[in-house]
Amino acid sequence: MIKINDISADAPADLEKSAAKDLTKEYVDRLGELQSILTAQKKYSVLVILQGMDGSGKDGATANVFKECHPNSLQVVSFKKPTEEEFAQDFLWRVHKNAPPKGMIHIFNRSQYEDVIIQRVHKWIDEDRVKKRIASINAFEELLAYDNNTIIFKFMLHISKEQQEVELNQRLNEKEKFWKHNASDWREREHWDEYMRCYEDVLNQSSIPWTVVPVDQRWYRDYVIAKAMVEKLETLDLAYPPLQK
Amino acid sequence: MIKINDISADAPADLEKSAAKDLTKEYVDRLGELQSILTAQKKYSVLVILQGMDGSGKDGATANVFKECHPNSLQVVSFKKPTEEEFAQDFLWRVHKNAPPKGMIHIFNRSQYEDVIIQRVHKWIDEDRVKKRIASINAFEELLAYDNNTIIFKFMLHISKEQQEVELNQRLNEKEKFWKHNASDWREREHWDEYMRCYEDVLNQSSIPWTVVPVDQRWYRDYVIAKAMVEKLETLDLAYPPLQK
Repeated sequence: MIKINDISADAPADLEKSAAKDLTKEYVDRLGELQSILTAQKKYSVLVILQGMDGSGKDGATANVFKECHPNSLQVVSFKKPTEEEFAQDFLWRVHKNAPPKGMIHIFNRSQYEDVIIQRVHKWIDEDRVKKRIASINAFEELLAYDNNTIIFKFMLHISKEQQEVELNQRLNEKEKFWKHNASDWREREHWDEYMRCYEDVLNQSSIPWTVVPVDQRWYRDYVIAKAMVEKLETLDLAYPPLQK
Repeated sequence: MIKINDISADAPADLEKSAAKDLTKEYVDRLGELQSILTAQKKYSVLVILQGMDGSGKDGATANVFKECHPNSLQVVSFKKPTEEEFAQDFLWRVHKNAPPKGMIHIFNRSQYEDVIIQRVHKWIDEDRVKKRIASINAFEELLAYDNNTIIFKFMLHISKEQQEVELNQRLNEKEKFWKHNASDWREREHWDEYMRCYEDVLNQSSIPWTVVPVDQRWYRDYVIAKAMVEKLETLDLAYPPLQK
């Protein structure tokens, strides 16, 4: 049973930053190599789900961890407010359309989990529907895993409420970040405890497990994500295919 | 009037490799900065068309030139043999679906031009249809340019027939490249002169101009593409937007 409030958003005190950064560089390079094999082999697909509060660093993680991946086989899917067309469908419709084909890594910047988090926080859906949706998500992810060899990574970017304030303030003060400012982020922040409760529920009810990533130090975020991905992918039977004459 | 046979596929003799590589690094870094502004400003979209014979280095150019671009705002679209669904539509249908929205860079790895090159070489379409298709492509590209502020870069990766043989042979001899081998590439090579004639026609009949990129030396390919993109983008009124309260 995961309790978010028991998990620190800080890097562990006994991990040295410069050593971690060196290791991260190695993992990031290796991830690029493993992606080349994935692309050539076309046996597996990879889905990376990045969830977290505003300012938790989803964009930064994407830029840093996948630095050595080839753009041909990497696609980011950013789930925003549903369009009218999407809203007229079940909540998984637009998600399923964006599942990764074999040989590809897809990064979901936000995901199906918004539909059981933000919607639940604001009571746009009732608790019965939340329960059914979580079951549907589990069934959907299992389908991808068994029927398309999709390796699913789920990262919950865990930021402290204090650090979020720092991050959101940067968007008010730094010219390069103005465009990321959204007044609604500050309003959502008022529902912090309710967000954490909904995240906690998701973490505990998922059949495919989550990695909770402490992100108050950005170098530790990148380290945890890159390490988790490489360690998992190294367990697979990845290999360049033989020559097809 | 462009004559392909008059253009060398080699780097110019008076350009020093190490100096060019240093400049390329600067252009690649700057392209990453310009992309950040494009994303923030959401005024322009960018379309990069990479066309060239097999082995001309479309994948390598993509990996190297866009190294500092953020994956959130970069998407590669690889046009392969049309699917049954695509084939039941006009040839621009699948292309239009993949036009870049504002704030995004889309790279077309092959493009609408295949439909007036490979199809013309094999006489799958007659000359009247070729003529109409080239006019349709011109109208389509002009539409993107005036109606969605799409900045269109068209790079014809110009490889010599000798160098192509070297590249295709690598796919038969290097384990990491086996998956790129395709017996049909060798068969297409037999139509070299006819391909060049069709490319030349496209280069001369396009309303939005092409850059012919000599690619026998890969470092020169990256230099030309990165330089052309940065120089053009620097002429635009790119600027981070003000804070929206």
